Amino acid sequence: MSPLKNDTFLRALLRQPTPYTPVWMMRQAGRYLPEYRASRKNAGSFMQLCQSPDFATEVTLQPLDRYPQLDAAILFSDILTVPDAMGLGLYFEEGEGPKFERTLQLEEDIKQLSVPDMTKLQYVFDAVRQIRHALDGRVPLIGFSGSPWTLATYMVEGKGGTDFLNTKKMGYGRPDLLHHILTTTADTVTQYLNAQIEAGAQAVMIFDSWGGALSHAAYQEFSLQYMQRIIAGLHKNYDGQKIPCIMFTKGGGLWLEAQANSGADALGLDWSVDIGEARRRVGDQVALQGNMDPAILLSTPAAIEKEVARILASYGHGQGHVFNLGHGITQWTDPENALAMLAAIKQLSPQYHAT
Amino acid sequence: MSPLKNDTFLRALLRQPTPYTPVWMMRQAGRYLPEYRASRKNAGSFMQLCQSPDFATEVTLQPLDRYPQLDAAILFSDILTVPDAMGLGLYFEEGEGPKFERTLQLEEDIKQLSVPDMTKLQYVFDAVRQIRHALDGRVPLIGFSGSPWTLATYMVEGKGGTDFLNTKKMGYGRPDLLHHILTTTADTVTQYLNAQIEAGAQAVMIFDSWGGALSHAAYQEFSLQYMQRIIAGLHKNYDGQKIPCIMFTKGGGLWLEAQANSGADALGLDWSVDIGEARRRVGDQVALQGNMDPAILLSTPAAIEKEVARILASYGHGQGHVFNLGHGITQWTDPENALAMLAAIKQLSPQYHAT
Repeated sequence: MSPLKNDTFLRALLRQPTPYTPVWMMRQAGRYLPEYRASRKNAGSFMQLCQSPDFATEVTLQPLDRYPQLDAAILFSDILTVPDAMGLGLYFEEGEGPKFERTLQLEEDIKQLSVPDMTKLQYVFDAVRQIRHALDGRVPLIGFSGSPWTLATYMVEGKGGTDFLNTKKMGYGRPDLLHHILTTTADTVTQYLNAQIEAGAQAVMIFDSWGGALSHAAYQEFSLQYMQRIIAGLHKNYDGQKIPCIMFTKGGGLWLEAQANSGADALGLDWSVDIGEARRRVGDQVALQGNMDPAILLSTPAAIEKEVARILASYGHGQGHVFNLGHGITQWTDPENALAMLAAIKQLSPQYHAT
Repeated sequence: MSPLKNDTFLRALLRQPTPYTPVWMMRQAGRYLPEYRASRKNAGSFMQLCQSPDFATEVTLQPLDRYPQLDAAILFSDILTVPDAMGLGLYFEEGEGPKFERTLQLEEDIKQLSVPDMTKLQYVFDAVRQIRHALDGRVPLIGFSGSPWTLATYMVEGKGGTDFLNTKKMGYGRPDLLHHILTTTADTVTQYLNAQIEAGAQAVMIFDSWGGALSHAAYQEFSLQYMQRIIAGLHKNYDGQKIPCIMFTKGGGLWLEAQANSGADALGLDWSVDIGEARRRVGDQVALQGNMDPAILLSTPAAIEKEVARILASYGHGQGHVFNLGHGITQWTDPENALAMLAAIKQLSPQYHAT
């Protein structure tokens, strides 16, 4: 593998000094880019993009080719590859969200759940290897997975949702069953992320997209403890390099103190938290990644620059900040507006890193 | 009007001592009750239930007749009566959420928005008067409205949603237009709630259902300041009685300190906040209402009782707690499980009020 030419992102995650605030965007390889839409059309479907290492490599690199300001690449894939490999049968219906052929609701089905053979996810590891090769050391590559709680909601409900009533009903009424799903999923995710690291991922991120739907007590019991279990089992170093881990619970801003004690190197923040206040709450335990509302990218360059300036000033001086959106960039974003954000970060952030 | 026989709820909102923790349930007159489903069938539709004072009275009283443990009634209505009165044309399509015939996106449409004549909402005030009469002093009657931000999202988007991209785009790109919508809506809501008070509402609640979708800074600018504007214009006393006001921003647990300074007497909490921690944060500025996850009502009486005990213990000794769910009761709830919650509150809460 070629040596890394830009390690700003990795250094910031480890709270080491950097000359500016590094940046990447969640879902940066996505539908807002015309080149992505063309690739997706060629591939035939979203899952075919994910399952073909050639296509995954092509779209992973598209935002980097367009925006030299980006300091990291993220594997193009989907969190639902894991429940699919666990036997639930992922499929997509035109114009609807992802669904599963089978759900985990009956005790006998749940008891049979087990950690799948990682060869079922070989296409992901092949993609990581190929992307890493194609990046040729330009920027680090991030691997990722969904959190056990988030994946469990899909496995129990059979589809996405907002209230997760079946999953919560199980958690309160038959916690033993939900804990079995979560333990099995956590052990699967641990193997999955370690295999991504072995294939070339230089940092990993756990997306707890639905942890924010839980109560204070249930978050600890059903989400956070399983992310801690994963982190405890991850490669901390690989091939002589530290492998930082980012934990992101969307809607989890109330629980940052607990997250900071999880073993993660960095926490993702959505836009509901003031990042300066978050920094005061977590101290120097972890780096922070975030946290601009992607809706702002629908407005004007002037409004975008103002918000970039506000977030950088709120975080303030010193290391430990990776700029990002607070959620994935929306498909309605004008690519020129994303550029305005990236350029503003490059222009405005060095003053916060002067020694 | 008959004298109030049970003022526990009003006393708790005003942080006065009570012998037990009063309770009501958001959406307590709702689809989980077979008697409600029968009334709705007779009325023909949800909006006909709202628009007929007879039907609104009938369903408002149903949960009180079933559960003598309830300490408050809430007007049966909908937050979207207000944008409908403002001329947007509310309608429902079978199997879908509420929609509006017109949306506020063009400058010329927005500039024409004005505070409507309250006679358009006379059916609401008639319902309040009739319910108050039918209650005959059993428990206090709560009036309510949506918050300006929450109502604005429906008016700009034309329907419900989860990301509110058009509304946010306006807020960041043309804040003058969104502020005009919000100011006009706030002034409408002030008149609307005051007319409910004049008709007999003994407490009022502002539902900021979508404030939690905003960033820290945008919440202050686009939601909180308009709720403060409303509260500043509300009748504080009417007919010799104090009229407490409850403010509830779902997903707003990060901003309780700011909410506590808004002039509201009480804050509604969703289940993401630990209520004991919330109490420490707001001190004795406001009462707190909440905050059990309604999903727990789908489990078992034993799990429900455990959660009631946990919430009561977390709030701890003394006045200022109104027990409630953290969001509306779901239609899938077994009425016996709601009873288990109410009975547990009546049984377990007096120990926290012993002198």
